[in-house]
Amino acid sequence: MPDPVALTADLIRCPSVTPEEGGALQLLQRVLEGAGFACTRVDRGGVPNLFARWGARGHPRTFGFNGHTDVVPVGDTAAWTVDPFGGEIRDGRVWGRGACDMKSGVAAFVTAAVRFVTHTPPDGAVILTITGDEEGASTDGTVALLDWMADQGEAMAVCLVGEPTSRADLGDMIKIGRRGALNARITAIGKQGHSAYPDRALNPLTALVRLCDRLASAPLDEGSETFAPSTLALTSIDTGNPATNVIPARATAALNIRFNDHHTGAGLIAWLEDQAARVSDDTGVRLDVACRISGESFVTPPGPFPDLIAGAVTAETNRTPVMSTTGGTSDARFIKAHCPVVEFGLVGNSMHQVDENAEVSQIERLTAVYERMLADWFAR
Amino acid sequence: MPDPVALTADLIRCPSVTPEEGGALQLLQRVLEGAGFACTRVDRGGVPNLFARWGARGHPRTFGFNGHTDVVPVGDTAAWTVDPFGGEIRDGRVWGRGACDMKSGVAAFVTAAVRFVTHTPPDGAVILTITGDEEGASTDGTVALLDWMADQGEAMAVCLVGEPTSRADLGDMIKIGRRGALNARITAIGKQGHSAYPDRALNPLTALVRLCDRLASAPLDEGSETFAPSTLALTSIDTGNPATNVIPARATAALNIRFNDHHTGAGLIAWLEDQAARVSDDTGVRLDVACRISGESFVTPPGPFPDLIAGAVTAETNRTPVMSTTGGTSDARFIKAHCPVVEFGLVGNSMHQVDENAEVSQIERLTAVYERMLADWFAR
Repeated sequence: MPDPVALTADLIRCPSVTPEEGGALQLLQRVLEGAGFACTRVDRGGVPNLFARWGARGHPRTFGFNGHTDVVPVGDTAAWTVDPFGGEIRDGRVWGRGACDMKSGVAAFVTAAVRFVTHTPPDGAVILTITGDEEGASTDGTVALLDWMADQGEAMAVCLVGEPTSRADLGDMIKIGRRGALNARITAIGKQGHSAYPDRALNPLTALVRLCDRLASAPLDEGSETFAPSTLALTSIDTGNPATNVIPARATAALNIRFNDHHTGAGLIAWLEDQAARVSDDTGVRLDVACRISGESFVTPPGPFPDLIAGAVTAETNRTPVMSTTGGTSDARFIKAHCPVVEFGLVGNSMHQVDENAEVSQIERLTAVYERMLADWFAR
Repeated sequence: MPDPVALTADLIRCPSVTPEEGGALQLLQRVLEGAGFACTRVDRGGVPNLFARWGARGHPRTFGFNGHTDVVPVGDTAAWTVDPFGGEIRDGRVWGRGACDMKSGVAAFVTAAVRFVTHTPPDGAVILTITGDEEGASTDGTVALLDWMADQGEAMAVCLVGEPTSRADLGDMIKIGRRGALNARITAIGKQGHSAYPDRALNPLTALVRLCDRLASAPLDEGSETFAPSTLALTSIDTGNPATNVIPARATAALNIRFNDHHTGAGLIAWLEDQAARVSDDTGVRLDVACRISGESFVTPPGPFPDLIAGAVTAETNRTPVMSTTGGTSDARFIKAHCPVVEFGLVGNSMHQVDENAEVSQIERLTAVYERMLADWFAR
């Protein structure tokens, strides 16, 4: 029977920086096959992915877990006080890259699933999808697993993503959706000239500040039932012109939009382009808008599945979790198209940082929460 | 005997971006000393300056020429189709940084002065003051030369500044005054944070673009009897934040105001500070305004000297020049305190731009105009 803390440490010792497998999925496959899970590696485009199922294919009561074993790079190795891939357990914590995001979460749900099907085999199925490409491009990871499952007639009725979601204490927050995210880079192209003769030049900054002020001043919405208001943040404006007597030829602005279900990425791009065109018409300055959508917004509406997850969390942690849609993107955005999806996991304070770590007691508690989710699901 | 076109090209090959001497003043000193001018380098604060006199010190009929050999930076080198410091002569033009502003003007008056004193030595003196700091802070340039001259008992009865003043054709405009100039640097100081949570940060860019849009959108005045409207040009906005998911802590803007006799430097500083305070009150972002006044507006009233200059221009170009006060600052603003000063030079269309250039025929014609100014001055 696996131990979630030891399994977390073993996983940390697998150097699985995206897209390296690093032995992590091989280790999990051995554990799961030992408990009767049917495992298949679904690798695509150099990315390793693992599919595992206990129980019958296509069973209507199939509970899914999703997570990833890939980790972000170590960064400044010299800044770490522990071996990032040492998996050291000390002072009540497991240390190393992925300790928090999210080898502990994977270890917890793998352990919970193995324990549950071993001790109380249910009338149903449990599917685990574990990818090696969540921190990277995410194009050949969970998406590939979901594509493959559709081809094979594999399906989950519900899915729990084990990403860190708790804020201050384990159990204080679950995620039922996420805002979408869009980055835009606006390049203003005018005509260089002498500051004393603005009418002989075409100042790109005059147009850029007008556009940026309009974009930043207009509230995108006032929020929706399940989402905070959409936000637009200017993140940089740059010119690099050291000469006060020269009007520059070009300048750039960067901005980041987090948007709720009042918007789509395509709609926001059209809005940005329209606003830029208006200012361009007024000023004669060319304004090029380049956008990248990191993800559309999505939400799992209130209902039995979020209630089941929240109930299991409360039962094990004595906390009533906030159902939140805050934060960055996760692979839940892909799963949403297939079944209700909710995210719950550890406190994520140290994720992506040096000396990443997770509390031993919280990993054990998280495992108990996951096991109770399975018990509650199959008890209905 | 120097040739003004070859001398222009030779000067362009001296990379004298402010405050670099680049060999330009050394070259001129050799030419002038060869013609009997007494030359003195009056360097101050790292800035190179050249004083040259032909004739007796303190002669009441001393004609002065003033100019600069420093040039503004090249900017985007890749955008140039010629070597900015190549001094190439092609298609009837001299090409390179400073071709127009104002190595051609310096070459023309140096050539004119050498030719004139060589061929028709006058009863009087000719003084040339040439600085390497007109495009920069201008604090250690012509000001230093004028200070030094006062100490040495050197004086000019009148002075012609050889900056580009013609608009469409050589001879269509002389300058009898200039607007004032003010540079402002605005620093916006907010609070760093994550782009997804703008309400937990304080975005300095939101305030900065609002202030800059207001400043750039408000006409300062509609001009006066002797002056064009005042202008305000944004010259740079910079942040240097590469992370799209981070709201920066600070950003800066630089702007340049050219103002007529409706304004004073102090009045404009008060206006800028008031506008900044309003936006700061609205946004909570601290906005620090730092200003430097390069010069107040001034005018040389109609009289014998402007008439002499205009007469020489008409005789050589068949054009009746407009007596104008448009354009940027020049070192005439410093000379004005010492003697009547007028500016006349080439068409300045390409100054400070990429592929800066000047017509060969115009440089030759300008040299003839300058030589005639000397002839007319000493003939009286």
